[in-house]
Amino acid sequence: MHTFTYHSPTKIIFGEGTVSHLLPELKASSIARALLLTGGKSVYASGLHDRVVKELGEAGIVTETVSGVQPNPRLSKVREAVARAKEMHAQAIIPLGGGSVFDSSKAIAAGAASEYDIWDLMLKKHPVTAALPIYGVMTLSGTSSEINDTAMITNEDTQEKFPFFNALVFPKVAIVDPVLQYTVPLNQIYYCSLDALSHILEPYLATADTCNVVSEHCEAYARAIIRCLRSLPQALHNYEIRSELAFCGTYAHSGWASVGRSRRGDFSSHRIGHALGAFYDLPHGITIGVIMPNWMQFAYDQGKGHEIFTRFAKNIMGVTEAPGNDFALAGIKEFRKFIRSLGMPVSLTEADIDAKDIPALADNAARTLPFGALVPMDVAAITAVLKQSL
Amino acid sequence: MHTFTYHSPTKIIFGEGTVSHLLPELKASSIARALLLTGGKSVYASGLHDRVVKELGEAGIVTETVSGVQPNPRLSKVREAVARAKEMHAQAIIPLGGGSVFDSSKAIAAGAASEYDIWDLMLKKHPVTAALPIYGVMTLSGTSSEINDTAMITNEDTQEKFPFFNALVFPKVAIVDPVLQYTVPLNQIYYCSLDALSHILEPYLATADTCNVVSEHCEAYARAIIRCLRSLPQALHNYEIRSELAFCGTYAHSGWASVGRSRRGDFSSHRIGHALGAFYDLPHGITIGVIMPNWMQFAYDQGKGHEIFTRFAKNIMGVTEAPGNDFALAGIKEFRKFIRSLGMPVSLTEADIDAKDIPALADNAARTLPFGALVPMDVAAITAVLKQSL
Repeated sequence: MHTFTYHSPTKIIFGEGTVSHLLPELKASSIARALLLTGGKSVYASGLHDRVVKELGEAGIVTETVSGVQPNPRLSKVREAVARAKEMHAQAIIPLGGGSVFDSSKAIAAGAASEYDIWDLMLKKHPVTAALPIYGVMTLSGTSSEINDTAMITNEDTQEKFPFFNALVFPKVAIVDPVLQYTVPLNQIYYCSLDALSHILEPYLATADTCNVVSEHCEAYARAIIRCLRSLPQALHNYEIRSELAFCGTYAHSGWASVGRSRRGDFSSHRIGHALGAFYDLPHGITIGVIMPNWMQFAYDQGKGHEIFTRFAKNIMGVTEAPGNDFALAGIKEFRKFIRSLGMPVSLTEADIDAKDIPALADNAARTLPFGALVPMDVAAITAVLKQSL
Repeated sequence: MHTFTYHSPTKIIFGEGTVSHLLPELKASSIARALLLTGGKSVYASGLHDRVVKELGEAGIVTETVSGVQPNPRLSKVREAVARAKEMHAQAIIPLGGGSVFDSSKAIAAGAASEYDIWDLMLKKHPVTAALPIYGVMTLSGTSSEINDTAMITNEDTQEKFPFFNALVFPKVAIVDPVLQYTVPLNQIYYCSLDALSHILEPYLATADTCNVVSEHCEAYARAIIRCLRSLPQALHNYEIRSELAFCGTYAHSGWASVGRSRRGDFSSHRIGHALGAFYDLPHGITIGVIMPNWMQFAYDQGKGHEIFTRFAKNIMGVTEAPGNDFALAGIKEFRKFIRSLGMPVSLTEADIDAKDIPALADNAARTLPFGALVPMDVAAITAVLKQSL
């Protein structure tokens, strides 16, 4: 095993009805003023937002709400919320929503505790020295944003989608109630769960140089996500399936899949996918579904990763026989077939992306180089993956 | 899945040479005075203690050392260290050692921050409201004491071995360097690793009512421990095996094996084992090795756990065929055989414990009732497990 640091300090409160834990957690830390953050309509339709406002208000906690966080969360909304948090002297940020709402809450938590603009903090022009604590309710599991210290924020002025990492923005408390996810449209569940799966596969496929137990751990979670997604359409209100899927989505990107590896993960699929997300405002899960199997095919064609792709085929995709005994190739095909079975596009064409945009997409993705562990990437390699994805 | 809270805030720094991270971590929190805590001779023989004293001293951090923490750590030593910590106005506790040293450090951290006696805090006569931060170096993985909030302390006056749990005593930083464990006698590695294995099996065998991925996760770690222990005698300086074993020992008892279960674990084997430990001062791993397979046999004879014992046999012990197709029984036998292959006793007799002590042992274990999930226990059931163990 390679040397690693693992830190996941978030307290996770998981299960049906656990929203009732929010107030006691805030009271235990004497929070008196908090900014709520929401995305689309679902937290209003489900009653979650109004319930939280009422319960906190009755307990004497002052709240204000910034709503309208969008997928691929925008810098402008972050800036708006930072201003509101400062104006109201918020002592905590309370995201109620999915990964975009949690991601935004991290940038807001850092921005609200700084005199500098959050984009300048993200560009590391100034250090992040403090952040407000985050107590959130996750309503769409898959990003693991509720338990990690990572955010992806899109600067709509520059069409840049950049990561923000800081140990000060780990949520203090993450509440995950799988029942709140019953009303999420099935395609969004698919997108988010595929994202979770990719968070396991990025490290799993990147390097063979960890200890075997970490790879077996990855395989168990990846199999579970695939198993749950296959069962879900026939069992939309099955709590066991919903909770196992939410559980896997919560933990997928906590960092454990990377422990002991020489590299945290490959993440070429993510970096190229983020470029698609920034240009076309596609759901992140769709960009992963389009790019990842094609990145696999690209790597396979380069003669890379044969051993781990074979293992992926047998231990995750459940491939038991393969033409010409080529399990690696059969596993990639099976993965693509699985994504298509979810009704998701597996090519740029199916995602309505024009081949003429490839140079611009490659250029955008290349701005975050270096990346790529199984295959180290450059502009030519990124272009090759995009062409493979046509 | 059942509702759960999971919280494991300790920052783990794992790998060869990671002791160098101790000083920067202390400096980052402005620690100026710290009490070191050690057990036997190994941290002196390896140079670890002197190195830490020198590095911290050169950086202006005042240290004092309390040495001589024993296995089944004693209350008297905890009280001695609490007094020293108070006298020197320690701002942190630095355990350098194994599970007993870490366990003791937790009681010391709470005791040093309280006006009350630590045993009274353990008996919950007064609440624990504060604790000094713990920054430790684990030199014998298996207890997971470096990343959980649990301690077992023996009151030698009353022959009671009681648990102490408190979220305030999670170590802040745990450093695990597998190379520091090369010089530990092999039998101690066996004891500690068997303890780690039991920390996975207690929840795994207790209830079938979690999601499947958690059980598969348990199986991967249990298999890894068994695989590493089988390879170790022929590969004492193999870093891959050492690090995988240390990694599994670190994580086994962090709490993840219990998530989503209706009960955290069975823990009958632990409770009865603790009684043996308190009476005979046996290494904890030996008491587990004696009791756990016999508890399994007891449960099997009561007609309990057939399904999970079958799964244990196939997915952990690797049993591929069984007389009369009774995999459950074959798995229990294989587990006993495995423990014996480590040169460890698998019965009270082999551990030099007299049958006449059974009533007193049962009475001692019964003081911590209620326990037992697969089979709820009482004095008669405890006695039956002990007789099964003869």
